[in-house]
Amino acid sequence: MKVYPNVLSQNDIIDQKLLTYSFQERGLQFGDGIYEVIRIYQGTYYLLTEHIDRLFRSAEAIKLQLPFSKSMVKKQLESLLKVNQITSDAKVYMQITRGTAIRNHIFPNVEANFYAYAQELPRPLDLLTTGVDTIIQPDVRWQNCYIKSLNLLPNVLAKQNAYEQNCFEAIFHRNDVITECSSSNLYMVKNGTIYTHPETNNILHGCVRQRIKQLVAALKVPLIEEAFTIEQLYQSDELFLSSSTAEIMPIIHVEGKQISDGKPGPTTRILQRAYEKDAKISEQ
Amino acid sequence: MKVYPNVLSQNDIIDQKLLTYSFQERGLQFGDGIYEVIRIYQGTYYLLTEHIDRLFRSAEAIKLQLPFSKSMVKKQLESLLKVNQITSDAKVYMQITRGTAIRNHIFPNVEANFYAYAQELPRPLDLLTTGVDTIIQPDVRWQNCYIKSLNLLPNVLAKQNAYEQNCFEAIFHRNDVITECSSSNLYMVKNGTIYTHPETNNILHGCVRQRIKQLVAALKVPLIEEAFTIEQLYQSDELFLSSSTAEIMPIIHVEGKQISDGKPGPTTRILQRAYEKDAKISEQ
Repeated sequence: MKVYPNVLSQNDIIDQKLLTYSFQERGLQFGDGIYEVIRIYQGTYYLLTEHIDRLFRSAEAIKLQLPFSKSMVKKQLESLLKVNQITSDAKVYMQITRGTAIRNHIFPNVEANFYAYAQELPRPLDLLTTGVDTIIQPDVRWQNCYIKSLNLLPNVLAKQNAYEQNCFEAIFHRNDVITECSSSNLYMVKNGTIYTHPETNNILHGCVRQRIKQLVAALKVPLIEEAFTIEQLYQSDELFLSSSTAEIMPIIHVEGKQISDGKPGPTTRILQRAYEKDAKISEQ
Repeated sequence: MKVYPNVLSQNDIIDQKLLTYSFQERGLQFGDGIYEVIRIYQGTYYLLTEHIDRLFRSAEAIKLQLPFSKSMVKKQLESLLKVNQITSDAKVYMQITRGTAIRNHIFPNVEANFYAYAQELPRPLDLLTTGVDTIIQPDVRWQNCYIKSLNLLPNVLAKQNAYEQNCFEAIFHRNDVITECSSSNLYMVKNGTIYTHPETNNILHGCVRQRIKQLVAALKVPLIEEAFTIEQLYQSDELFLSSSTAEIMPIIHVEGKQISDGKPGPTTRILQRAYEKDAKISEQ
């Protein structure tokens, strides 16, 4: 998918070809930074405030001094869409690292590096209709998964394993307790109630996850933030995941085993419609 | 400390100013790569073969296809010293990532990115004589610490905490069991026996650590690879850490508490001399 040519770098908008970093960038040598992926529907950000809020929470968690205020970054992100004349479905990737300095674990006294770019991204309509297959992997990540950091190697390895088994996602478990997926949150439906892992340090506090809690409250569908096991997962009535790019994605197979009747369930579909309404996605 | 101007990049030697990477480098966005830091004494590599072997083990662990053989990288690393005319104490940093590609967790079909540079590094003679202070931190890292990966954010945060408390290193524990330090292995001496965490996935399999095992065998000093607790650590007769840059470094304080008589112990000092002899370090 096409990356739009104009990108944000510090306070400037530059051509993406000029967006390069020294070999001593701290993102490159330590993964010492944070990021966000923000959804755009027909040229408009979805959950922008929520993403910016989380960016600032991640920054605080790793003691990273941000070189801008929330309103400044919001303004910059809006200008990124404008200068690229984006009016279709897309996403923006932004990251901030602790800057460029001679390699030393200790924080350098330099300015943070910030960049953001926009990329085309149609909705995954086919998959949203059919549902996806998944695998289960041990959650070997660090203990601060609530921080959206650039230390993504375990996520990369899990996702690759899923891909090699023709699956869309890898579901993580810690000692048989399901946490989330390699790049999305996970939910199961049992007897009309939605269950998902509580908002601890062991999962990312997803912006879509947060919104789902509000949507189900309005729909009067019970949602309980309570962890469940691999065994319970296989016995669920419905299973779905959420992320800014995957939306509300039904899961129909786990490790080759069919979940319920192998079709997206009614609660998942109701939630998909509520999501579309909330994101002001017009009929396509 | 000065970085030498000529650096390795893929198969070439280039000026460090030209060593830059696209914003879509996978090291920068995922920490999707591995690295080594190799010691140089008076223009000669120490434990070069061991470091190259570990690099290849790390690569295999993250399924990273290396673009060269062991003998090729060895030859390149030797040429790095030669072209910079390095004859003093230094270190080489090298890293390899899964390349540059449009951001996607799944492995791209591109060539790995490799670079290496040399940097001046005198021996820390004062600290080796006096010993250093340390703090204790929870080990929140992932479960594959034996892989020398670029996912170093927890190490960075722990080392910064140590620095802010005027300490040299942060000692990690998992549920009160000592693992290692943020960038070094840890050892305690009790009743003439050296104890260190076994070579599991929870610690880096240090090249100096490996060599220490050989040195103590020759010295007939017993070394047991057995984990110990925080409580046992405080009751130790001697405490020291090891790494390629810190060598055999005595620890005299932990969290402000004095270890034994607060001076580098006899076993540590014997080991320091054996290390110097092994590394062919001339009297300074």
